[in-house]
Amino acid sequence: MEIVKTIGDMKALRRQMRGQVGFVPTMGYLHEGHLVLVRNSRKGNDHTVASIFVNPTQFGPKEDFTAYPRDPERDFAMLEREEVDAVFIPGAGEMYPPGFDTWVEAGKITERLEGAVRPGHFRGVATVCTKLFNIVEPDRAYFGQKDAQQVTVIIKVVRDLDMNLEIVVVPTVREADGLAMSSRNVYLNPMERKAAVILWKALSTADKLWAGGESNADRIRGEMMTTIEKEPLAVIDYVSVADTETLEELEVINRAALVSLAVKFGRTRLIDNIVLKK
Amino acid sequence: MEIVKTIGDMKALRRQMRGQVGFVPTMGYLHEGHLVLVRNSRKGNDHTVASIFVNPTQFGPKEDFTAYPRDPERDFAMLEREEVDAVFIPGAGEMYPPGFDTWVEAGKITERLEGAVRPGHFRGVATVCTKLFNIVEPDRAYFGQKDAQQVTVIIKVVRDLDMNLEIVVVPTVREADGLAMSSRNVYLNPMERKAAVILWKALSTADKLWAGGESNADRIRGEMMTTIEKEPLAVIDYVSVADTETLEELEVINRAALVSLAVKFGRTRLIDNIVLKK
Repeated sequence: MEIVKTIGDMKALRRQMRGQVGFVPTMGYLHEGHLVLVRNSRKGNDHTVASIFVNPTQFGPKEDFTAYPRDPERDFAMLEREEVDAVFIPGAGEMYPPGFDTWVEAGKITERLEGAVRPGHFRGVATVCTKLFNIVEPDRAYFGQKDAQQVTVIIKVVRDLDMNLEIVVVPTVREADGLAMSSRNVYLNPMERKAAVILWKALSTADKLWAGGESNADRIRGEMMTTIEKEPLAVIDYVSVADTETLEELEVINRAALVSLAVKFGRTRLIDNIVLKK
Repeated sequence: MEIVKTIGDMKALRRQMRGQVGFVPTMGYLHEGHLVLVRNSRKGNDHTVASIFVNPTQFGPKEDFTAYPRDPERDFAMLEREEVDAVFIPGAGEMYPPGFDTWVEAGKITERLEGAVRPGHFRGVATVCTKLFNIVEPDRAYFGQKDAQQVTVIIKVVRDLDMNLEIVVVPTVREADGLAMSSRNVYLNPMERKAAVILWKALSTADKLWAGGESNADRIRGEMMTTIEKEPLAVIDYVSVADTETLEELEVINRAALVSLAVKFGRTRLIDNIVLKK
């Protein structure tokens, strides 16, 4: 497995690859969810490139950029075991040299949900993905459904800017009790970790109501909030039932709906979602 | 010569091309300046693709989008004569389908000069060029020095977003009296056309002062304005002596300087520039 630190070296290595290339962009501190992305890429392509880059431009000034967990040596060992061909791990100065000032903005859908709470977040995501896609030139890039809005934004950017790759969305990988895997779960203390299962319970409530014939989005949001409020450590940021493409809140679920939520446990903020298919 | 109207067909045609591909993006209504770009591309590449697209997103609401001159049949004949391989001529709905909402913003340098007078202009330019580069996937794209700030913006976008092509800047092509070739020159009535030579005279004044040892930018701007004000049909929009990369106005010319100007003749606004090399 090659470990590549500069854009020039990554482009040179890419030019040597023949056949289809799959790409798994990550912020490191890998877990089983990332490895499932890697396995999907390995299955569908001749080569697989992963990247590890805690992207400063997608963190707000009061967010956890410096605290974000990092362990590249462990990440390398995990990726080596999955037989990844190359890991691209640039420094912040390599990706954003002095004078850098070009941004990819994905418009209205970045103003809702996570974007409303985290202004500038998706500008950072869209910009770094555009750069990574241009550097790695993959045929396919793999993202987890857990970051649902990120997936929506990236699919829109790729389509609107006519980029030459396919975005493959892989189902969320969960712990035994339903908690979605996330590098940020490491922030939770044991009590918060137990309490965090409430996200999955709230999503399951929505799923059951929908399966039982409920299509009133307000009632579904209401039941989800009632479920979460039973957990004293949980503080709701938002509970949303929205159109999967425009991310506009729905009144009636008459098309595919993204049910998503953000909940805080102490200083840790977790997100999760499911899609209700029409 | 192939005439291609859809993004899908252009991408398919591109995949059939072997060797190096040069690209000349235009808004049509071609003149000798465009043909010089084409000849440069033909010389430096195995294939040459031109595009004709009057890009609505780079025109302001009060600008000349609908009036902009168009004559695709004449353009095709000219490009055919230059042995261009393919012309990409998409409709506005092909490039900007309903729901389109992703933009490439090149930051501070788009707020100066033309960007200050034409808000949103360079967002449209950067976005359409990103799209065209992704569709045509050229090894090199050719732009005229006449649109100096456009060149600066595109070079910055390509570098900041790690795009895989080279931007080749070709010197401005001029009429016998020095007027820079432009599709918009067709708007000028015979009196305005004569008066328009004042742009070249003002630029030549700057060049002579600089060659004679003058490095005070204010004095150069002042002499240029005095020159232009002698022409009663000319109304100055701006006269600038700026850093070629940041486009910040200079007090002293102690590095390469872009001397540029925008002048109105009736309802027609013309721009031109020269670079003073240190």
